Amino acid sequence: MKQFLSANDADDPLQLAREAIEIKKDPYEFSHLGENKVLGLIFFNPSLRTRMSMVRAAYNLGMKVITLNVTSDSWQLETEEGAVMDKGHAEHVREAAAVMGSYCDILGVRSFPGLRSREEDYAEKLITSFRNYGNVPLINMESASLHPLQSLADLMTIKEFAGNGKPKIVLTWAPHVKSLPQSVANSFAQWIIASNMDLTITHPEEMELSSEFTAGATIEYDQEKAFQSADFIYVKNWSSYKDYGKLHKDSWWMVDERKLALTNNARLMHCLPVRRNVVITDGALDSNHSIVIRQAENRIYSAQVVLKKILEAL
Amino acid sequence: MKQFLSANDADDPLQLAREAIEIKKDPYEFSHLGENKVLGLIFFNPSLRTRMSMVRAAYNLGMKVITLNVTSDSWQLETEEGAVMDKGHAEHVREAAAVMGSYCDILGVRSFPGLRSREEDYAEKLITSFRNYGNVPLINMESASLHPLQSLADLMTIKEFAGNGKPKIVLTWAPHVKSLPQSVANSFAQWIIASNMDLTITHPEEMELSSEFTAGATIEYDQEKAFQSADFIYVKNWSSYKDYGKLHKDSWWMVDERKLALTNNARLMHCLPVRRNVVITDGALDSNHSIVIRQAENRIYSAQVVLKKILEAL
Amino acid sequence: MKQFLSANDADDPLQLAREAIEIKKDPYEFSHLGENKVLGLIFFNPSLRTRMSMVRAAYNLGMKVITLNVTSDSWQLETEEGAVMDKGHAEHVREAAAVMGSYCDILGVRSFPGLRSREEDYAEKLITSFRNYGNVPLINMESASLHPLQSLADLMTIKEFAGNGKPKIVLTWAPHVKSLPQSVANSFAQWIIASNMDLTITHPEEMELSSEFTAGATIEYDQEKAFQSADFIYVKNWSSYKDYGKLHKDSWWMVDERKLALTNNARLMHCLPVRRNVVITDGALDSNHSIVIRQAENRIYSAQVVLKKILEAL
Repeated sequence: MKQFLSANDADDPLQLAREAIEIKKDPYEFSHLGENKVLGLIFFNPSLRTRMSMVRAAYNLGMKVITLNVTSDSWQLETEEGAVMDKGHAEHVREAAAVMGSYCDILGVRSFPGLRSREEDYAEKLITSFRNYGNVPLINMESASLHPLQSLADLMTIKEFAGNGKPKIVLTWAPHVKSLPQSVANSFAQWIIASNMDLTITHPEEMELSSEFTAGATIEYDQEKAFQSADFIYVKNWSSYKDYGKLHKDSWWMVDERKLALTNNARLMHCLPVRRNVVITDGALDSNHSIVIRQAENRIYSAQVVLKKILEAL
Repeated sequence: MKQFLSANDADDPLQLAREAIEIKKDPYEFSHLGENKVLGLIFFNPSLRTRMSMVRAAYNLGMKVITLNVTSDSWQLETEEGAVMDKGHAEHVREAAAVMGSYCDILGVRSFPGLRSREEDYAEKLITSFRNYGNVPLINMESASLHPLQSLADLMTIKEFAGNGKPKIVLTWAPHVKSLPQSVANSFAQWIIASNMDLTITHPEEMELSSEFTAGATIEYDQEKAFQSADFIYVKNWSSYKDYGKLHKDSWWMVDERKLALTNNARLMHCLPVRRNVVITDGALDSNHSIVIRQAENRIYSAQVVLKKILEAL
Repeated sequence: MKQFLSANDADDPLQLAREAIEIKKDPYEFSHLGENKVLGLIFFNPSLRTRMSMVRAAYNLGMKVITLNVTSDSWQLETEEGAVMDKGHAEHVREAAAVMGSYCDILGVRSFPGLRSREEDYAEKLITSFRNYGNVPLINMESASLHPLQSLADLMTIKEFAGNGKPKIVLTWAPHVKSLPQSVANSFAQWIIASNMDLTITHPEEMELSSEFTAGATIEYDQEKAFQSADFIYVKNWSSYKDYGKLHKDSWWMVDERKLALTNNARLMHCLPVRRNVVITDGALDSNHSIVIRQAENRIYSAQVVLKKILEAL
């Protein structure tokens, strides 16, 4: 594997998830693969799971890690080509990416969208700059529009529970108190559809995601109808794609035990962090339906299979 | 050892200090014990000695480390059960602790008290939540009311100098410019008393500590009288326990060379950081009485003996 | 080597650069030299290249690393002797340096100048305190007045391109939007002159550097004249040394392709970060003249040769 920016970088997404399940059984089997290799983790935004799981995955493979919080450890980066840099940005991403790439064998970058301009966010300028100028394999640790490490862990988790069955998977929009990216939802749809699995997406009518990622899914505006006979309920808020970045308020969509009772005893999924009693109720999160901690734990192995594939191709 | 939250988690506090002294003689003897083990250090507050000594101790044992500054690297955690999380806290400690525990083999947590509510602080909600939801051995890296790694290093340092003698140990309150926790003083008293050593505590009358920790010590309100024939003077400021969190100002209590001259050529101790010429004078700190740097160095070995005991029981 | 604070700590600066070139050919040759050794990196200021290259160099030598951002991870340090510490500084550098030295086998410190008082900055109080109280070998990761790791990488880069030739090296002042230290310029001059290489420094008349570092260089106030027949153009802004810390504005001095055409097809150097189209134009930076990324990459090997020399002398 030469890079991991989206599902398109996996020859076979489902097979990659299966390999992650294998690695989980013996996480230290390839602990010499990363010898003398350094993973650089570049954070433009806060992170808990991504940060810790990437480091753990690298350690499991015998890699060493350099972590950089761009804005607090160093300084802001300019991404515009041709900019006259007389303002706040002390360094251009062209130099920063090339230099980081010279210090590390693999780079991971996390950078959230501004949610002000759809065109700007979906152009993925920062991640693209790191790909173009970094000169080493690049891993998307959540970009403006995608979060493939999360989705691979999600797919892996579904496979752990569903085996070779054909589950009904439902992605549902849920309420939140602030505008969030579409990245997790986009990416989940992309990976599930690329795996030829049955995906239903339910959300308020105005909360349509980009068809670039959802083509192939069933869209159902009635949440309760969508939940019927579902095997997996993936809950996630996102802000509006059409009226870009707008916060949609509709607390009715919060997921609770009553709604889970409509399903085929579905597993409850969320990428975390989750705001309790806003997105999902305590009752639902603390019920036997919930597999959110398993999902988070599997972030180690989705990161590890990606690092392994990249190390093997170095 | 299954956890290290207070002196109560040590079968024999004095014996643990003796083992730390042994480890110091050959710090790399157990450098394979931590193979493939990851220590997660979770900081809700700043740290210098605790951070660096824990990392060094883990390295000496062959462990790897993941450090997380909660508020700057990730986001604030909710600790209330049943909270409707529509405010500033993006994640509940239930999920955060469980997830961190899935990424690490041992967790250390540092979290200072708010010093607004005694009940809230002494309930130790955060550390208790990590214990309940983390699912891995937990180390207290200074909580609202206790700092056992510091106290174990203090005890070890006293044993290094006193050998098998029966020293008179004095803990004295000293002035400061801001309200500080009682944790170091509580914990020092707990460990010294649990080791059946002779402890005198001296402080202004209104600065009484919780008897939960000091029962068994002699309380002496006259600092100069307390210092007579003392072998160890442990200096520390704390804010009021009774009038909870209140700053007490009385610069007379600052420790200087004149007061040290009243002692049995006592060793001068402080956990650091120390404000010079506010808590202790330059003259006293720079005299041969001072063993504060040795105390700090011994933080490596108090951490290392705890990690060793926990690793052996994994 | 016992410390690395300036060119004066290198027996033979040019020979040290040659050894760095050798190490680059086989970076893992000495990967057991750092076994059980811990490098402490103490940052009082932001850093990208220095941080990442130091960590990489330490990893290449088998060392482990503890990184501390002083102001965010811990607290501000007092440097005045005799201070009554009742203000913002929670700890004195005397204790902090001694403690850090007890946790690490080698310390690196980065601390920028305040640019308010020349006397204070050039006294290098912080780095001197760490040398005096740290009790372990100290590496200057850019102090108020010098940046020797950068200069050693610069010298190494020049040697890579010039071989045993006798190149004409030009250091040129360039414009900037904020007041910057003289450290990179001072240090570059110190190392090039100590290597008996031919150095011309060009800058506006009022931007004279301290003769302590530039004695032996040719000073030429006409930038275009200085560029004639140059083999290396090192571009760097600095604030006034005479009118200490003052920002000099003169955009004419920006380096572009037209000026590079005056040279002997010179290599273009800059320590980075560089503000594009303020200090150097896009055209010049993106031309074949530029070796700025190579310079940055060589920071690994300048750090590594220094760490190696220090480890060998431990």
